[in-house]
Amino acid sequence: MAKFMDVHHGMKGITAEQLSAAHRADLAVEAKEKVHFERAWADPQSGTVYCLSEAPSAEAVKKVHAMAGHPVEEVHPVPLTI
Amino acid sequence: MAKFMDVHHGMKGITAEQLSAAHRADLAVEAKEKVHFERAWADPQSGTVYCLSEAPSAEAVKKVHAMAGHPVEEVHPVPLTI
Repeated sequence: MAKFMDVHHGMKGITAEQLSAAHRADLAVEAKEKVHFERAWADPQSGTVYCLSEAPSAEAVKKVHAMAGHPVEEVHPVPLTI
Repeated sequence: MAKFMDVHHGMKGITAEQLSAAHRADLAVEAKEKVHFERAWADPQSGTVYCLSEAPSAEAVKKVHAMAGHPVEEVHPVPLTI
């Protein structure tokens, strides 16, 4: 298992409720891929959302986000953390 | 005060020690701008570093990173967090 940071673009105007619903959708399906989404941060102005997860691979992170209805292309392994 | 996520590029090959030293450099000067750097995540392969901070403005985040020797252009306010 490793840490990953993924980045969604084009989410301009996202609300707290929408972010929360998206996170719940991830949590509902993440076990299928042995992923856990830990945190998320959103900038409604630029439409950027960052998600921090623990997962077996970047592919697994992508699969969960796709199943939850918000596919992502940009997934970075972040082995170094502070 | 608000939360900010900033993103550094071009840090390919960054080591745990270098990330830690950079973070310590931020902590040493952040009080001047009333900023606090809370977390950082690095992907040595793509050379991307994400820093999460609490700060009065994006400008203050930029000033601290510049003073610490690693200026950044990309700073996003992230008012929504999970």
